[in-house]
Amino acid sequence: MPDRDRNFFLYVNMDKCEIEISKPPEKYSSLGGRALISSFILDNVDPICSPLGRFNKLIIAPGLLSHSSIPCTGRLSIGAKSPLTGTIKESNVGGTASKDICRLGYRAIVIEGRPESDKLYVLVITPDNVKLVEKPELKGKGNYETVKILKDEFGKRVSVLSIGPAGEMGMAAAGIAVTNIEGMPSRFAGRGGLGAVMGSKGIKAIVIDPKNLQLPKPVNSEKYKELLKDYVSRFKENPVTSTVLPTYGTANIVSITQELGAIPTRNFSEGRFEAADLINGYALKRLTDERGGKTGHPCYPGCIIKCSNIYNDPNGGYLTSGLEYETIVLLGSNCGIGDLDTIAKLDRLCDDYGIDTIETGAAVGVAMEAGVLNFGDGEGTIDLVHQIGRGTTLGRILGQGAGVTGKVFNVYRTPVVKNQSLAAYDPRALKGGGVTYATTPMGADHTNGNGLGGNSDPLRPEGQIEYSRYFQIAAAYIDSLGLCWFTRGPLLGNLELLAEISNSYLGLNLTKDSFEMLGKQVISTEKEFNQRAGFNSSHDRLPEFFKLEPLKPHNVVFDVPDEELDNVHNW
Amino acid sequence: MPDRDRNFFLYVNMDKCEIEISKPPEKYSSLGGRALISSFILDNVDPICSPLGRFNKLIIAPGLLSHSSIPCTGRLSIGAKSPLTGTIKESNVGGTASKDICRLGYRAIVIEGRPESDKLYVLVITPDNVKLVEKPELKGKGNYETVKILKDEFGKRVSVLSIGPAGEMGMAAAGIAVTNIEGMPSRFAGRGGLGAVMGSKGIKAIVIDPKNLQLPKPVNSEKYKELLKDYVSRFKENPVTSTVLPTYGTANIVSITQELGAIPTRNFSEGRFEAADLINGYALKRLTDERGGKTGHPCYPGCIIKCSNIYNDPNGGYLTSGLEYETIVLLGSNCGIGDLDTIAKLDRLCDDYGIDTIETGAAVGVAMEAGVLNFGDGEGTIDLVHQIGRGTTLGRILGQGAGVTGKVFNVYRTPVVKNQSLAAYDPRALKGGGVTYATTPMGADHTNGNGLGGNSDPLRPEGQIEYSRYFQIAAAYIDSLGLCWFTRGPLLGNLELLAEISNSYLGLNLTKDSFEMLGKQVISTEKEFNQRAGFNSSHDRLPEFFKLEPLKPHNVVFDVPDEELDNVHNW
Repeated sequence: MPDRDRNFFLYVNMDKCEIEISKPPEKYSSLGGRALISSFILDNVDPICSPLGRFNKLIIAPGLLSHSSIPCTGRLSIGAKSPLTGTIKESNVGGTASKDICRLGYRAIVIEGRPESDKLYVLVITPDNVKLVEKPELKGKGNYETVKILKDEFGKRVSVLSIGPAGEMGMAAAGIAVTNIEGMPSRFAGRGGLGAVMGSKGIKAIVIDPKNLQLPKPVNSEKYKELLKDYVSRFKENPVTSTVLPTYGTANIVSITQELGAIPTRNFSEGRFEAADLINGYALKRLTDERGGKTGHPCYPGCIIKCSNIYNDPNGGYLTSGLEYETIVLLGSNCGIGDLDTIAKLDRLCDDYGIDTIETGAAVGVAMEAGVLNFGDGEGTIDLVHQIGRGTTLGRILGQGAGVTGKVFNVYRTPVVKNQSLAAYDPRALKGGGVTYATTPMGADHTNGNGLGGNSDPLRPEGQIEYSRYFQIAAAYIDSLGLCWFTRGPLLGNLELLAEISNSYLGLNLTKDSFEMLGKQVISTEKEFNQRAGFNSSHDRLPEFFKLEPLKPHNVVFDVPDEELDNVHNW
Repeated sequence: MPDRDRNFFLYVNMDKCEIEISKPPEKYSSLGGRALISSFILDNVDPICSPLGRFNKLIIAPGLLSHSSIPCTGRLSIGAKSPLTGTIKESNVGGTASKDICRLGYRAIVIEGRPESDKLYVLVITPDNVKLVEKPELKGKGNYETVKILKDEFGKRVSVLSIGPAGEMGMAAAGIAVTNIEGMPSRFAGRGGLGAVMGSKGIKAIVIDPKNLQLPKPVNSEKYKELLKDYVSRFKENPVTSTVLPTYGTANIVSITQELGAIPTRNFSEGRFEAADLINGYALKRLTDERGGKTGHPCYPGCIIKCSNIYNDPNGGYLTSGLEYETIVLLGSNCGIGDLDTIAKLDRLCDDYGIDTIETGAAVGVAMEAGVLNFGDGEGTIDLVHQIGRGTTLGRILGQGAGVTGKVFNVYRTPVVKNQSLAAYDPRALKGGGVTYATTPMGADHTNGNGLGGNSDPLRPEGQIEYSRYFQIAAAYIDSLGLCWFTRGPLLGNLELLAEISNSYLGLNLTKDSFEMLGKQVISTEKEFNQRAGFNSSHDRLPEFFKLEPLKPHNVVFDVPDEELDNVHNW
C-alpha cells in the first residue's frame, strides 16, 4: 500500500490479473494529468499496437494540482492510444474521482494487458487493499445501474469510473463515466473511445474509496491562505466564471455561436439553427428552475465556477446531469432537433450506454444526411441511440463514430479530423477553432481551443494560427494541472499567481514561464507519438467539404492555408 | 479524334460533362499501365483529396506493350487514389478492353471531376466519336444485365467496363468489371475500391468500340517474327505456363498452399483446410469437364497461357467465368466453405454486384468470427453477398471491406494492411508474401509477390526481404508493360528477349536492365504519393495477431523484423 508521500503508480496487469504498486521513474514525479499520460504513453506504448489489444495501456492520472485543495483543480485525465483516432489520446473529466485518487496517494493508475477470457472485473481501490473482483452480473449493464449496484455494495461515498455496454462492445465512441457529486455517472471522459480500451481490458468499473484519507495540507499554509484570496477573487471578478457559467452553464454558448453563424446545424450544412432559442442557456435555465433542477452545480468538489446542472423531466424527476453545450448542439441543432427534453433524454441514454454525446450526435447527423432517418426526428434519434446500446448492426456502425458512419453510408460531408468528429463550432465561421481541430494531436477536439474569444475576426483566416497555438498550449498545461478549461479566463492573465499558489501548496518551483514550457513539451511529446503511429502533416487537415462548401449565413469556407496549419506547432 | 500515332489521352471531365482529346506531356509517352498511372497520379491528384470527391481522378491505361500483338500483353491497368486504402492504387485486369483502347489510339483515359447531379452516364468511345450518354435505366443494375443492355445497343463486338450497384453506392470493395472474350463481365479490376471511384464520377459503364481499327504492325516485322518463335517457346518450355495453368487454372495453387500450411482458413485462424480436396484444381477441372465448361480459357485476346475458365452449374448452364484461386480461398476455406458450386455462385454474385471477391471473402470471414453467421454457412454467405448488392445496413458494412467490418464488429483478428484485406496466402507460412503484403504501396496485395516460388524456406524469416524486393520490382514493371503476372516464369530469366521483342515491335530502346529500373521507379513514385497522403513506415506492418498467434499446422508466427521491412525498398 502506498504511504502518504503521494507519488505511487498503481499497475493493473490484466494478462495475469496482477496488481503492483510502485514508485514511478523520477521523470514522472513532477508531472500530472495530460503531461504524465503523454510522457508515459510515449515511453511505454507501442505506437502501432492494436488499440484494443493487449499492448495498449489505459492511464488514469489526476492533474498535478489535483493533489492540493486549490479550487478548480479536480479534473482527471484518462489516456491511451485511441481506437477512434489511432493517435495518442487524453480525455478530461470532472466528477469526484480525481481528488479521491489523490487522497489514496496515487499519481496514476495504469491498466495494461488483456485477459484471455471474457471475464468482467471491477477494480476496487481502498487505502488497505487493491483487488480485482469478478462481476459477471454487470455484463451489458448501463452506467446508471452499474453505479447503483456498486454503491450499494461499496458505499455511497465511493467514486466510480465505469463503462456501459458500448465500452464492452469495443465501440470507438465509448467513453468512461465518472460519478459526480451526487453519485450519478454523468461526467464523461467521452472522446476517443477510451471506454472501449477499458472494456478490452475486461474492466467494467473502478471503485475508488479513499475512506477517511485526506488531501495533503499546504506546504506553506500562511502563504497559501494569502494567495487563495487573490486566486478566488480572480474568478469572482470575471463575469463569465462568476455569472454567465453558473447561471446558464455552457449552454450559454448556443446564443453566441448562433449569432456568429457557427452553430453546427443539420450535419454541418448550415451555421444558424432556426430553433436555437429553444435550446439555449435561457431555455435551459428556465426549464431547470421550473422543474426544481439545478444550474450552478459543480462538476467536481472544489469547483468555484459551477457551470454544470441537474436537468429534471417535466414531472420534476431526475433525468440527467451535466447537460453541456456540446451535447445540446451535436444531438440538437446538428440533428435538426430543437427540443431540450429530447436532447436531455438523449444525453441520459448516451451516459447510460456509455457513449460520447459529441461523436454520437455527429454520427447521427451523418446518418440523417444518408437518409437513415430525417433531420429533426427526435424519436428516431432516441431509437438509434438505443440501437447503439443494444449493439444492433446499425447501432454498431454509429457506435464507431461519425467517420465509420460516413464511410459505410457513403456520405461526403463527414465532419471528422483523424476520424474524430468535430465538436460544436463550425470551423468555417470560427476559423481559429478550425485550426485547432485540424492540428491538435488529439483529432478534432474543441477543448484545445474552440475559436471563441480571440481578438481576430473569426470569419477571416488572419491571425488564427497564433490564436490556435496560444490556446493549444494553454489547453495542454491546463489539462496537465487538473484545472478546468474555464479557468482560462481568470488565470491565463495571472500565471504568476497560479505559479505561486501551486508552489505554496505543493512545494513546487513553478514560475509564470513554466506553464507555456510545459504546454509545448506536452504537445511535442504527443506529436512524437503520433508520428511514430503513422501521422504526418497530411493528417492535419479539415475534411475537403469545409474548403468547398460555403457556410450560411456568412457564406464562408475554411481558408486558412495549409502551410500555415503546418506552422502551428513550430515554436 | 486521335490519329493513328497511338499516343493520345482521353480526358472526361464530369464537372461539366466535357470531353477532351489531347497529346499528353512528353514524360508520359514512353510509359504504360501502372507506370503511367503512378506518374500521372503523383503529378495530378491531390494526395489528401477525398477519394470519392471531385478532385480524385480515375485513370485507365493499357500496358506499354498492349499497343502491340506480342502475346500475353493484354492486361489493363486502372488507378486512382483508393477509397479503401487511401494510398495510390493500380488494379490490373484482363478482358478485351486493353487491346481495344490501344486500337483506338489512346494511351490513357482520365476521368475527373464529379457531376453535381446524381445522373448516371455511359461513356461511349468509337473511332468517330466520344460521348457521354445518360442512362438512368441502368441505375442499380448488376454488371451482367448492364453489359447485356449495352451490347444489345452498341453491338456484340464492344468491350465494356462497368460497375455494379456496389460501385454506385460508393463501397470500398467495389471493383470495375471488364468483359471477357465471351462478353461476360467476369474480369475484374477488383482491388482498392476503384468501382466506387467510377461510381462517384457518375459513370456506370464505358463502351469501347474500335470498329475495324487494328493494332499497329511491328516496326521491324522480320526481326519480330524471328523473336516471336523464341518468345513463345519459353512459354511452352515452362511446365507451369504450358501445362499446370491451362489444365487446372490458378486453382492449382490450392494444393500447394494446403501442403505448405498457408491456405487461409476460417478467417486466417488455420493454415490447412480439411475440405481443400473439394475446392482444388483437380476438383475444378473435373466439374468443369463433366459439365461442359472450360479450362484453358484465355482471360484476354493474345494470351498463350490460358489459365482462366468457364464454370457451369450442375445442369450445364453458364454460372460464372474466371473462377480464380483467390476467390476460391477467400470465399471458400477462409469462410469454412468447401463446396465449389457455392463458391462459384458467390463469385458470380460478386461479379454481378461488382465487388472484389478477395475483400468480400475476407469481410465475410471477419463477420463469421464476430458471430454474424457460422463458418461454413454457404447459404448464409450467399445471403450476405445479396445484402451487399442490395445495400442493406449489414451489406454496407461488408461492402466497405474487412477493415471496416472488423472495426464495426470489434474483431481483433482482422487481416488487413493499409485497410485492404490480405489475399489467399497466410503470411506466417509464406513469409515472403507477408513482407509484400506489409510493404507494397498498394496495401496487402498478392500480385506484388505472394511468397510462392522463392528459394528460401517460406516458414523462416531469412531471405524474405530479398525475395519480396525482387518480386515487387518485377510486379511493378510487369504491370506497366501490360504483361500478365504468370509471364514471370517464362520471361523473368529472359529479359533480353523481352527487351528485343518489345523493341522490334514498338521501336523502343529497352535493354534487359531497363525493366528493373522501371520497376524501382514505379515503386518510388507510388511511395512518394503515399508519403504525401500520410503514410510512413509504421503503416508497412502486418496486423498484430500475425505476430502473436501461431498458425497451425506449423505453429509459426510472422517474425520478419520491422527493421528489415523498412529496408525492402532501399536500393
